[in-house]
Amino acid sequence: MKLVRYGNPGKEKPGLIDAEGRLRDLSAVIPDLGAAQLDDKVMAKLRRLKPDTLPLVRGKPRLGCPVAQVGKLVAIGLNYADHAAEAGMPVPKEPIIFLKATTCIQGANDPVILPKGSVKTDWEVELGVVIGRQARYVSQKEALDHVAGYCVVNDVSEREYQIERGGTWDKGKGCDTFGPIGPWLVTRDEVPNPQRLSLWLDVNGERMQTGSTRTMVFGVAKIISYVSQFMTLMPGDVIATGTPPGVGMGMKPPRFLRAGDTMTLGIDGLGEQVQPVVAFRR
Amino acid sequence: MKLVRYGNPGKEKPGLIDAEGRLRDLSAVIPDLGAAQLDDKVMAKLRRLKPDTLPLVRGKPRLGCPVAQVGKLVAIGLNYADHAAEAGMPVPKEPIIFLKATTCIQGANDPVILPKGSVKTDWEVELGVVIGRQARYVSQKEALDHVAGYCVVNDVSEREYQIERGGTWDKGKGCDTFGPIGPWLVTRDEVPNPQRLSLWLDVNGERMQTGSTRTMVFGVAKIISYVSQFMTLMPGDVIATGTPPGVGMGMKPPRFLRAGDTMTLGIDGLGEQVQPVVAFRR
Repeated sequence: MKLVRYGNPGKEKPGLIDAEGRLRDLSAVIPDLGAAQLDDKVMAKLRRLKPDTLPLVRGKPRLGCPVAQVGKLVAIGLNYADHAAEAGMPVPKEPIIFLKATTCIQGANDPVILPKGSVKTDWEVELGVVIGRQARYVSQKEALDHVAGYCVVNDVSEREYQIERGGTWDKGKGCDTFGPIGPWLVTRDEVPNPQRLSLWLDVNGERMQTGSTRTMVFGVAKIISYVSQFMTLMPGDVIATGTPPGVGMGMKPPRFLRAGDTMTLGIDGLGEQVQPVVAFRR
Repeated sequence: MKLVRYGNPGKEKPGLIDAEGRLRDLSAVIPDLGAAQLDDKVMAKLRRLKPDTLPLVRGKPRLGCPVAQVGKLVAIGLNYADHAAEAGMPVPKEPIIFLKATTCIQGANDPVILPKGSVKTDWEVELGVVIGRQARYVSQKEALDHVAGYCVVNDVSEREYQIERGGTWDKGKGCDTFGPIGPWLVTRDEVPNPQRLSLWLDVNGERMQTGSTRTMVFGVAKIISYVSQFMTLMPGDVIATGTPPGVGMGMKPPRFLRAGDTMTLGIDGLGEQVQPVVAFRR
């Protein structure tokens, strides 16, 4: 299933994209799409519905983040060997974990705002993993059973804040609007192998990133198992699993986002995002 | 006012500690103590109550984190020059920001669990700042108006995970139970100067940390203003403002927590925490 949350920010309703690509309202079935709805039981109930019995939604409403009230947005750094190389960093021996402030989360097509004075805002297409069941010290073998589904994440990053301002990467990773998620939450039954997905990102129609989750240093199961040793993953938590090569920081000379740019990005079967880049206005 | 949330984990009710130190139930006045209650308006309403008209709570219930559903637990690193020295790190030129996973948050006196196999779990008494009003690019002058109140935080840290396992500090900062907060949220009117507070921490009755917020590298107003440039601070977010010297990592030889230890810590006027340290058990 392709699940969404549609409507204005803070007023989103749950919905489903049917086989014809039409948006159907789920709000008579579930109150929202968040921690309480992401377990296997609710998902099985949704799967038993006949989509054509659900009300069609008119028009083209905005799509919010397909997960309500994400508790933690965990991210994995340098998880593609070729991206580590372009960033001038060694391939990590074990997964690098950082956290994106959850206030950065927004819908797939909401504008990305350059922070005041920012000159090094960069893009990162990533496979997002939505946790459906609490995970604490889970084995790699059990890990994928804890996934509700997958989605596209743009791990937008301000490189000066991340690298040149002292401290941890978190400073450049959690600015407002730096976490577009969606358009859909695609349930795990429709993603038989999360390590066989192509990812891509364009800026102003020019291809910047092309990759495949096949070349991840640490695969999704390993990441979930690993992170669950350092913190309990809860239903509704999202993990951004790292980006393939082609970020602006890695170009010669480096290239960063400017107001007026448009990012378009997508992952096989998980849909596309389109974000205009705008200047900060109070 | 000294505000609390009392009861079993996940079932806490709001309460107030009266002038005689007795716990009074606030649940007929406010549904909980979280983002929606931390603004000046609700606080003014609570201040107008006559505490002796509120029901007394019998017994000694557990105290949970005094803020419900903390959205972000932001922490500041190396914010006391003498602590930076003992950690073998330079005094930062601008505040170091990291994030603690919110799943680490618990009540002031709940047991701290050593992660599986952990041999370097350490203590850090810190002044916690509870945000009451949304803060985005706020000036230092306006910053303290965005504070609902203050509290004690123990920024429990696993030093091997934090420093020796690659990546950012977040890996050693957000383990379950690593964020005791409370016992009280003391409203800002009762803390005329957050830079004149003594802090202390004992392990098994032996004094380990003694300090004063007077020697912070960056004061509370500066921290709020600074953090608000990198992420929007929301009501219910908590900032842990750094620890004075005396952590286990800085001792010669280093000393870390073992199952059976007890941490006792406190800040002038903000109350005390007592945490037994226990081994992980599934």
